[in-house]
Amino acid sequence: MEFDTIAAISTPMGEGAIAIVRLSGDQAFEIADRLFRGVGGKRLKDVASHTIHYGHIIDPKTGEVAEEVMVSAMKGPKTFTKEDVIEINCHGGLVSVNRVLQLLLNNGARLAEPGEFTKRAFLNGRIDLSQAEAVMDLIRAKTDRAMNVALGQMEGRLSKLIQKLRQEILEILAHVEVNIDYPEYDDVEEMTHHMLLEKSAYVRKEIEKLLRTSQQGKILREGLSTVIVGRPNVGKSSLLNSLVHENKAIVTDIPGTTRDVIEEYVNVRGVPLRLLDTAGIRETEDIVERIGVQKSRQVLKEADLILLVLNYSDELTAEDENIFKAVEGMDVIVIVNKMDLEQKIDMDRVHELSKTHKLVTTSLLEDKGVDDLEDAIASLFFEGSIEAGDITYVSNTRHIALLNQALNAIDEAMQGVEMGTPIDIVQIDLTRTWELLGEIIGDSVHESLIDQLFSQFCLGK
Amino acid sequence: MEFDTIAAISTPMGEGAIAIVRLSGDQAFEIADRLFRGVGGKRLKDVASHTIHYGHIIDPKTGEVAEEVMVSAMKGPKTFTKEDVIEINCHGGLVSVNRVLQLLLNNGARLAEPGEFTKRAFLNGRIDLSQAEAVMDLIRAKTDRAMNVALGQMEGRLSKLIQKLRQEILEILAHVEVNIDYPEYDDVEEMTHHMLLEKSAYVRKEIEKLLRTSQQGKILREGLSTVIVGRPNVGKSSLLNSLVHENKAIVTDIPGTTRDVIEEYVNVRGVPLRLLDTAGIRETEDIVERIGVQKSRQVLKEADLILLVLNYSDELTAEDENIFKAVEGMDVIVIVNKMDLEQKIDMDRVHELSKTHKLVTTSLLEDKGVDDLEDAIASLFFEGSIEAGDITYVSNTRHIALLNQALNAIDEAMQGVEMGTPIDIVQIDLTRTWELLGEIIGDSVHESLIDQLFSQFCLGK
Repeated sequence: MEFDTIAAISTPMGEGAIAIVRLSGDQAFEIADRLFRGVGGKRLKDVASHTIHYGHIIDPKTGEVAEEVMVSAMKGPKTFTKEDVIEINCHGGLVSVNRVLQLLLNNGARLAEPGEFTKRAFLNGRIDLSQAEAVMDLIRAKTDRAMNVALGQMEGRLSKLIQKLRQEILEILAHVEVNIDYPEYDDVEEMTHHMLLEKSAYVRKEIEKLLRTSQQGKILREGLSTVIVGRPNVGKSSLLNSLVHENKAIVTDIPGTTRDVIEEYVNVRGVPLRLLDTAGIRETEDIVERIGVQKSRQVLKEADLILLVLNYSDELTAEDENIFKAVEGMDVIVIVNKMDLEQKIDMDRVHELSKTHKLVTTSLLEDKGVDDLEDAIASLFFEGSIEAGDITYVSNTRHIALLNQALNAIDEAMQGVEMGTPIDIVQIDLTRTWELLGEIIGDSVHESLIDQLFSQFCLGK
Repeated sequence: MEFDTIAAISTPMGEGAIAIVRLSGDQAFEIADRLFRGVGGKRLKDVASHTIHYGHIIDPKTGEVAEEVMVSAMKGPKTFTKEDVIEINCHGGLVSVNRVLQLLLNNGARLAEPGEFTKRAFLNGRIDLSQAEAVMDLIRAKTDRAMNVALGQMEGRLSKLIQKLRQEILEILAHVEVNIDYPEYDDVEEMTHHMLLEKSAYVRKEIEKLLRTSQQGKILREGLSTVIVGRPNVGKSSLLNSLVHENKAIVTDIPGTTRDVIEEYVNVRGVPLRLLDTAGIRETEDIVERIGVQKSRQVLKEADLILLVLNYSDELTAEDENIFKAVEGMDVIVIVNKMDLEQKIDMDRVHELSKTHKLVTTSLLEDKGVDDLEDAIASLFFEGSIEAGDITYVSNTRHIALLNQALNAIDEAMQGVEMGTPIDIVQIDLTRTWELLGEIIGDSVHESLIDQLFSQFCLGK
């Protein structure tokens, strides 16, 4: 395909040692040559591909030096976009990088839209849609595991699975075709029915398997929304602190995003907990008083994980019991804290209240029991199974929705076969399944969807 | 010199398309080869210098893919540090770039201190100290002009001037040497005195010339601390808005710096105004009420520029007169706003009060007069002289202090000559001048000073 030449700043904004302005398109080398003055008058169009060149960016209007740079010259198709790509490494800093970008825009390049480089990689056929989406997931990854999932998806792990399933469906459809073309052969029809059910069941099972990974995949990708509840003075803040200090917390506070929302990601055995921001945690201090109030129930309801803290050295109160009621049916870990003090709590009653929940005892003051808590969190969400690195996790909401639709479509196809529905109706459902799976990897998707997907990317990618 | 191999993240922290981890030192290629798996098993140590290679970073412990990367391999001495340099371009994002850095640190690299790459460029003799300092100024530059000053200094413009002056002093010293060695020749002494004064006067004049640029240089570098004062409802906020909107405002709000301090840089004809942050501006709303209070006087005193706003459609009040008193002797531009409304102000009195200040009339509502205001700001600080791009500005506080000391030393030498002080005493003052100028470019500076200077750099530079 042929596109115009786009340019954007590809490093995060801010003061740093190096900033990169990236150019991609047929004119990339020509535009760069209008500005670049290399040592000895060397022209970029004459250099070998994938080489680095020291020199200056000169403002062609004034003839003055605009910046001292290193230029990476990469000729397509062995590039990120499959097009000719120029990367200009400038000194970090807002003025420097903006000045170089501006000169490129004044000399023939167009400012890239968010995600447009990756979009070209997709449109030029280097990666499929699920791989492109993984690029963004990789950048946004908050934990090692999330990054591994994205990396696997980027390398085409999910794509290969999807392609395999689509191939299966194509084979079924080919058989159905035979059946429609030669309806006079009864035994063909018989065989077709049998084969149809068997092959469809296989596809169905595989889709289901993928969907089963989706809860974990989503957790890996978005973090487990976690709320700490308990009466005042049971140790909620200590719990927060020991989770944050023992496990590297990543605070996502990128310039440009709303200042007010600070999410803290705590990495517990690879499970990313998305803790409420400090204000949020503080709010839960008086959640007990507001139990029963619609809004506080809502906060709890939206959580994926509740950490319910009790005081070992105090008697259970009506408040405690109310909290148990409020979190019924949710994923709860009950933490009996202050084991270092004298027991006053009725542990039999605690066990009774916790019968559907996990229960750990801690002395956060003495740093005891945190390991058990982390075990409980990890086993609650991954049952130890995630350690095998070869599972393909579906984490993207769009993919999950498509897989669910595909599951419904193949269910209808199978029901049709069993109920003796005319084979050309079954064919429609199978084709629909094939198409839905195709949308995951970007086959047969609408242009508007593609535009919308890439617009969520960051600039310069 | 020989150093160990250092590594650091060289792009700003945050989510972006590309992040760079940089390695420098003798072991750079070896360490990178422990982790990098290029296409076809290619080893970095075997590739040509200044080439780019696609591949993966593999965790040697697990054998698993840690990241998909592009590696730039650059062999010394034609690199930023004059050492072997490897730059690993990863996908942006906190996990990805930290993972790659961690692997490098686990496999033989040491985490670089802030500024350590630039420090090596200095220690290895690629740049002198004033050039190294310019690298940091370049990154921190808030306006085009500040960047040009830094760029000029980085290219050695200041260094060359300083070297020229030191050469002059060396020649004087050589003559003095002759005089000391052959004191019996009276005519030599005579000639020496005459030459000494003449040459010293030249050096003195050049140092003075450099120092004269320092106020403008400092403004270019640090911005002009600007306060808008005036009674309520005269148009202070409108003034702020029109300055911010007409001139691209750069908000310096880098992760890692204090959250509370937000400086807004407005670029008026290349003059960077460092406006007080919004809270600061709001505070000046009631500055009138507190005129006379020590603290508000302090705020005004620390400002480089006062924009004093009056209301054309209102009579002058005692408050207005008080403001004029408070800013006596400072750089003030008086702005008579609301020219679109009926005149009630006594313009004769305004002229009288403003006789030492510049005066402009505006209608900010109708967007009139802002040009005049900008002219006034630009001419107040640069008298139009800055347009000639070939002036070398001294902007660094350390340089200014050294130049002032050098000026004193040469003054003492000249006074000594005139007062007939023994020539070997004069020699001491001249040598001192020579040494002080040398400190600017990093000749004869203490190691502790160097450490301290580079520690102000950002990580990865």
